[in-house]
Amino acid sequence: MSEITSRNRIHRHKDRGHYDDPTIYEILDQGKICHVGFTVEAQPFVIPMAYARHGNALYLHGAPNSRLLKQLGSGIPVCVTVTHLDGLVLARSTFHHSLNFRSVVAFGTARHVEDLAEKHQALITITEHLAPGRTRVARAATDEEAKATSVVRFEIEEASAKARSGPPIDSPKDMQLDVWAGVIPIAVEEHEPQPAPDLKPGISYA
Amino acid sequence: MSEITSRNRIHRHKDRGHYDDPTIYEILDQGKICHVGFTVEAQPFVIPMAYARHGNALYLHGAPNSRLLKQLGSGIPVCVTVTHLDGLVLARSTFHHSLNFRSVVAFGTARHVEDLAEKHQALITITEHLAPGRTRVARAATDEEAKATSVVRFEIEEASAKARSGPPIDSPKDMQLDVWAGVIPIAVEEHEPQPAPDLKPGISYA
Repeated sequence: MSEITSRNRIHRHKDRGHYDDPTIYEILDQGKICHVGFTVEAQPFVIPMAYARHGNALYLHGAPNSRLLKQLGSGIPVCVTVTHLDGLVLARSTFHHSLNFRSVVAFGTARHVEDLAEKHQALITITEHLAPGRTRVARAATDEEAKATSVVRFEIEEASAKARSGPPIDSPKDMQLDVWAGVIPIAVEEHEPQPAPDLKPGISYA
Repeated sequence: MSEITSRNRIHRHKDRGHYDDPTIYEILDQGKICHVGFTVEAQPFVIPMAYARHGNALYLHGAPNSRLLKQLGSGIPVCVTVTHLDGLVLARSTFHHSLNFRSVVAFGTARHVEDLAEKHQALITITEHLAPGRTRVARAATDEEAKATSVVRFEIEEASAKARSGPPIDSPKDMQLDVWAGVIPIAVEEHEPQPAPDLKPGISYA
């Protein structure tokens, strides 16, 4: 359970806010890309990154001389947000149009992972999160490759989830308008695997 | 063309960076949710918000007493990021796994829209962007409703786009491994409209 503080408290639509770990972890686990926010000399940056959750932490990775990763791992305050768009909410009035969504905003700090064993484990965790099962078939990272990757571990100090679902909520006076109302569901979908043009013959996608 | 400065310059994978307006605008126009970053007392916040582009600006909106909107419109530095995930890139080696994506990171400042006519126009722009055609059928916002909404206009000062597409790029030594390699395309898709349970009978989705 995330403690509720001035940093993560939901102010608008309090009924849409959640602070329990299972809700927060489920939303985090269903995303592939997070948006990482940090501040350098008063300038905020928001960078999309692959990630994976491990317990109450998120692993992020990148190139070792990445400006971003250097900043991130230096212990500055970081905010990581994951959002899923679930639907367009079409109301009878323009005013009550909305979006169905689930999101998590997490606050914490990140540190560089230096230990080679933890780094290997983090890279496996990220790859398995992005493409489940792949670390069983793909060649594992060598120590050289792990050393050539920067990994940071973002420890979640506080977080909140926010979600809207369900049909539009129009004003009573608008209910008799001859306007279609409802939801257009939106989903992120995986399509037919496309083999690499240089794939060795005879290997099929498992 | 966005000027290239220390703020928006792409450092990693320079070949994946773009600074031209058409590329940046196209990526912005294809998203429904952006991630808005700003800093309050050294703490970064990253908040998902609906948006729409109008020329070189993005309109964002929310409740008038929203803490977020108040901060955003006060002229502080803001970073807005839009990301599309296009595919999982499965390489023969764990190390070369990647994601296909398109993203824009935009820097600028936001100001509150006070003019009622511009506010109405902004709300129409946002609604049309989220659900094209809806402002022709849904009841238009009244002046009261527009006054009950906070709108901020984020002027893009600098931006950069970054994109990866295409198959995995493995090391030559891994090309003979018996491992499937390729891309799993990912797309955001709209599904069959779901009428509101209280929809007036006889109205079909146009």
